[in-house]
Amino acid sequence: MTVKLNAFAKEHKEMLENFLRSSIERLEAPSIIKESMLYSLEAGGKRIRPLLLFATLHAFGKDSKKGLHTAAAIEMIHTYSLIHDDLPSMDNDDFRRGKPTNHKVFGEAFAVLAGDALLTYSFQLICETPEEYAAADIKLKLIRELSKAAGAEGMVGGQVADIEGEGKQLHLTQLEYIHHHKTGKLLAYSVLAGAILARANVEQIKVLSQFAFHLGLAFQIRDDILDLEGQEELIGKPVGSDTNNHKSTYPSILSMEGAKEALTEHIGKAMAYLKSLGLSTSLLEEITELVAKRDH
Amino acid sequence: MTVKLNAFAKEHKEMLENFLRSSIERLEAPSIIKESMLYSLEAGGKRIRPLLLFATLHAFGKDSKKGLHTAAAIEMIHTYSLIHDDLPSMDNDDFRRGKPTNHKVFGEAFAVLAGDALLTYSFQLICETPEEYAAADIKLKLIRELSKAAGAEGMVGGQVADIEGEGKQLHLTQLEYIHHHKTGKLLAYSVLAGAILARANVEQIKVLSQFAFHLGLAFQIRDDILDLEGQEELIGKPVGSDTNNHKSTYPSILSMEGAKEALTEHIGKAMAYLKSLGLSTSLLEEITELVAKRDH
Repeated sequence: MTVKLNAFAKEHKEMLENFLRSSIERLEAPSIIKESMLYSLEAGGKRIRPLLLFATLHAFGKDSKKGLHTAAAIEMIHTYSLIHDDLPSMDNDDFRRGKPTNHKVFGEAFAVLAGDALLTYSFQLICETPEEYAAADIKLKLIRELSKAAGAEGMVGGQVADIEGEGKQLHLTQLEYIHHHKTGKLLAYSVLAGAILARANVEQIKVLSQFAFHLGLAFQIRDDILDLEGQEELIGKPVGSDTNNHKSTYPSILSMEGAKEALTEHIGKAMAYLKSLGLSTSLLEEITELVAKRDH
Repeated sequence: MTVKLNAFAKEHKEMLENFLRSSIERLEAPSIIKESMLYSLEAGGKRIRPLLLFATLHAFGKDSKKGLHTAAAIEMIHTYSLIHDDLPSMDNDDFRRGKPTNHKVFGEAFAVLAGDALLTYSFQLICETPEEYAAADIKLKLIRELSKAAGAEGMVGGQVADIEGEGKQLHLTQLEYIHHHKTGKLLAYSVLAGAILARANVEQIKVLSQFAFHLGLAFQIRDDILDLEGQEELIGKPVGSDTNNHKSTYPSILSMEGAKEALTEHIGKAMAYLKSLGLSTSLLEEITELVAKRDH
């Protein structure tokens, strides 16, 4: 990671995490639900989605403060999805990033409700973006696109397809549907939100959507490769857990070599779209390269 | 019910239910999640919240179409809360209104996800209100207030307090906190949303909030009374189930006589606030009277 991206990531992570914490602390709500929400929000994580949003704003030369509320909203939705995915009725995971999952600490009922509360709060936060950072029409666009990215047509739909595909040998198109929806849509929204906040034009938004599509698939392919070739202490789960859970993955469908080729191809396309924009995309380019090489 | 309210309720219920159905049908999502969402949306119910919204618009002489998207959003949030409340980890209910609960039909995972999808979609629907019915500033107010009414500071917070109070003998203030949040906030929002859409002034909104506060508590007291004195085939659950579940209720804290007095008092206050507005509140007044007398 270059010094520039490193400093940018550190500064924005800190800004985001302070904002997340104070947003929860100010809620007038039973303390147990605030604790449960904060526990998962602060369970670590790369904050890759907020970073994508801030880097997109940077590409347009815009102030990061414009995107703080929306970045927090995205991270809340990402966190709620992890809490619900980990539930006994879903993936039944006891640990995430080496820490006990929300329902192991707070019980299932408060885990469900903490997820519900995070999802609900995310829309409120976007509404509360100061007027100087986003006008009403911008906020409405942000909310509408977030609903679509996170709901039945997006992330939730992907999770549904993932559950339906369990134990089945999937085709590549089915696997891509799952990932494009389950993780891709919210990743892509992070870029889109930056573009909306920067009042990007239609053509720029189209190109950035293409970039985000390929970045999202690359992200997931790297995830699948790491599951087989990663180090347990870095990825935070046993190596080979997808295989043991009979999950279809890119390497299981394309072979490891084919998966690595597909990764290189998606990264290449993502980079090409980025560079075609003629904006200050150096941070986004570097994040894209990191996605291809990340070890956790 | 007068002929006027009867016709108004029937017409608006039909309009709402058609809109709910088409809103789900148009989703590009796995069919199982659409079926699960629709199953619970169409599981019957009085549609009291949408009716309150439409009757509030009527009080201001405004077209009901203004409120259709928001009414649907409210009903989706109410429905999601029922799906999640019924889960094994929460109230563990197998039946609601005489029909198997969502997770009994679709399994727990899809029940959780259908709830998540309904909650998420509700915000999208408000965004999609045609511009002629609500300007951007109005939509943002509707979304912000809905998040607050439904989230940790509202409905979810009430559900948390309800779970924390299980098996304990509560004080009246604790019971009122639970009901004011768990059911009161969304009922009150239904009235508030009508007022926001009608561009009511600050004083009118203040009075309507007082009205809705008392209406909400009256609604819950009547619920508690029905649990003891209602007919099983009308209320759709066994008589006395609160007592058997060791739930604190108005009759258990105030005695049946005291609960009935409290009901009369809240209805009286609600009516007084309504009449002080000097608007065409005849429908709202009649709904208020019905809440006091309803048998299911």
